[in-house]
Amino acid sequence: MSMTNGVRALVRRTHEERVLSALRAHGALSRGELAAKVGLSRTTLSEITASLLQRGAIVVADTDAAVREGSGRPAERLALDPGAGQVIGVDFGHRRVHIAVADASHNVIASGLEEYANGTPWDERLAIAFKLVERLSQETGVHYGALQAVGIGVPGPYTGTSSVSPAVSWKNQLMPHGVDAAFEERFDAPVFVDNNTRLAALAEASNRPDVVDNLVYLRLSDGVGGGLVVSGRLVTGTKGFAGELGHIMVDPNGSMCRCGKRGCLETVASAPAILAACRDRGVSVETIADLGLEVAKSNPAVDVVLRDVGTAIGRVLGAAAMTLNPREIVLGGEIVRIAPVLVEQAASTIRYELYPIPTDEPLVVRAAQLDDSDGALGAIAAIFHQSPLLAGYPEPSASGDHDQPQRSAQ
Amino acid sequence: MSMTNGVRALVRRTHEERVLSALRAHGALSRGELAAKVGLSRTTLSEITASLLQRGAIVVADTDAAVREGSGRPAERLALDPGAGQVIGVDFGHRRVHIAVADASHNVIASGLEEYANGTPWDERLAIAFKLVERLSQETGVHYGALQAVGIGVPGPYTGTSSVSPAVSWKNQLMPHGVDAAFEERFDAPVFVDNNTRLAALAEASNRPDVVDNLVYLRLSDGVGGGLVVSGRLVTGTKGFAGELGHIMVDPNGSMCRCGKRGCLETVASAPAILAACRDRGVSVETIADLGLEVAKSNPAVDVVLRDVGTAIGRVLGAAAMTLNPREIVLGGEIVRIAPVLVEQAASTIRYELYPIPTDEPLVVRAAQLDDSDGALGAIAAIFHQSPLLAGYPEPSASGDHDQPQRSAQ
Repeated sequence: MSMTNGVRALVRRTHEERVLSALRAHGALSRGELAAKVGLSRTTLSEITASLLQRGAIVVADTDAAVREGSGRPAERLALDPGAGQVIGVDFGHRRVHIAVADASHNVIASGLEEYANGTPWDERLAIAFKLVERLSQETGVHYGALQAVGIGVPGPYTGTSSVSPAVSWKNQLMPHGVDAAFEERFDAPVFVDNNTRLAALAEASNRPDVVDNLVYLRLSDGVGGGLVVSGRLVTGTKGFAGELGHIMVDPNGSMCRCGKRGCLETVASAPAILAACRDRGVSVETIADLGLEVAKSNPAVDVVLRDVGTAIGRVLGAAAMTLNPREIVLGGEIVRIAPVLVEQAASTIRYELYPIPTDEPLVVRAAQLDDSDGALGAIAAIFHQSPLLAGYPEPSASGDHDQPQRSAQ
Repeated sequence: MSMTNGVRALVRRTHEERVLSALRAHGALSRGELAAKVGLSRTTLSEITASLLQRGAIVVADTDAAVREGSGRPAERLALDPGAGQVIGVDFGHRRVHIAVADASHNVIASGLEEYANGTPWDERLAIAFKLVERLSQETGVHYGALQAVGIGVPGPYTGTSSVSPAVSWKNQLMPHGVDAAFEERFDAPVFVDNNTRLAALAEASNRPDVVDNLVYLRLSDGVGGGLVVSGRLVTGTKGFAGELGHIMVDPNGSMCRCGKRGCLETVASAPAILAACRDRGVSVETIADLGLEVAKSNPAVDVVLRDVGTAIGRVLGAAAMTLNPREIVLGGEIVRIAPVLVEQAASTIRYELYPIPTDEPLVVRAAQLDDSDGALGAIAAIFHQSPLLAGYPEPSASGDHDQPQRSAQ
């Protein structure tokens, strides 16, 4: 049967992925062993390994002379190049950039961060990021010759459709423009850009032995943002605004929000709002660290504030849970780490809302497990998710036949 | 390059789909014309057309004797079989079953419904549905020899993962069990089952020249249910409960709901709840038709009730819109058709909630366009969406090369 170019490319990627998987699973293998393990002809396998060697994704590790039985020339054994960066994840925050580099095994082989002042222009942030990428290479020996893609997290909404479509923005808020093009030019690799809170959601969903297919993530920080993973995919929404849980109204008579509405979740659940509410009750707290001390002392005024906030969060997340039926709801941000009562109170509010749903496998409500590098890790996870072989398509298998429409719901 | 069975099946389906598309676009074609149009060798094309002919998906329409230039035996011209049902969509409601049959052009070529009493056991509903399928064949000449799949809508949550996993259910509510297995056995075709309100959402998303990728659907009926389309896919949720917008709390002091909570949207926005609220204001209405008469008379008490309901709906849908950033929000159900003010009031409430989002392409809030057959049409749409070639994977093209990870966000 003849093949079109598109199908041919798919077949090649399938084979490459299978070769890399075999090397991940078994360590160094000769071409003969590889061919047997992945079920390919020697000729096809040679084409595949030549391309992978040329791009630096794999290396010749040694020969099988030591273990070889019988006569003949020893065969080279191939292995993953431990220094080959396959994917770079970048997270531009308001005050720092985080970068992580992953190898073909999806392991992070280098990471670091660089701080800058709030309001630093984007061209300077880019220069800082590029310098950090170089520094990581010098410090760890990682190289970028086999780079498949770069994933980038940015603050604020982002549709990330392509470098030609401008980034969308909140009203009156400056957005990074051309960040993707700059990285594409610098690394000659495809670039994926998305909101960094959303990427953190994907990182939390991917950070366990069992990947969580359906997850709602809420981050309490200077603002309140969210991210959704639905059926294993990040949800962007029509204009890049999906997951804006911080601007759902929780109190029609509440305070004015920076978004222009009144009584958004952010007006009660952002870190500054929580600190202000504590001060209103006579508790002298200026920073999250101060708040941590009061929590440690079991200050009852602080407990009331945190439980009220937890209830407000729980209302919003409860509605989101009835809408999306996720497996996990995750609360992130520094203030969650010092005030576990927020998670506890939100969880009981959510559980009430979920009363009608059978509880044989109850929803998990938990604090985030990753630290501030979650955006960069999520950018890497997004790239691995984006690979055509992984993006919602049944992987062709040597034995299975995908001739039938799948029976499962989406 | 060698091919695995899985890739081979994908290639064959790609080719079949391309042959069917060419016949859809151009009408009857000879094998030679087909081979040229789809870019396949004559040998490969003959394999493909032989299989399609054998399954009754296509027929020999005529020969090219009339238009042929030069000598030689006239060539057969092939065409889609206009009577070949490719997909059957079934929607079991509480009181009737709707069935629609679609051909390879995705056109509905037969449809009908059969009523039964509320509470009719599932084995009787199945027998009624099978009889209706036969009746449609006798009345319209449609045949099921080329059947690809059957899509089935049922009331209540449904994970639809496979015939071996039991249907999940609301607490204390009987769910159809074995419906999928019965259809699989009867038609020897794969079966897809999902909640019928969710399928109606997909039908509304697919019912326009431009398919709507992101849509939230709410149906006001005896109960209040919903469905979500995210990135072109139906959202099921972890346990099949996604889209349960009717059981989001809108009033902590509200009435008890049949789900066991207090103040769910359903307690104010179901058709019975709306009629009861009108009676509480002294308006004598027993049926939706009665309500329609009062709306036509611009009864001010009825207007107040409907606007209050519209506001409650708008609160829930506004939060869903901030969560999912859909392109359209659709309100369905008989009561929406007779009371457009519901949509109007919900729309302005939603618009307030969406204030922070740029309005260059504002969210559309509208009444449903399809009638009660929406569930069966949605079941058909779900099958066409489920086809491996359409399910989130870039279709291999003769010219394009999908070697690069896609740059778009999910």
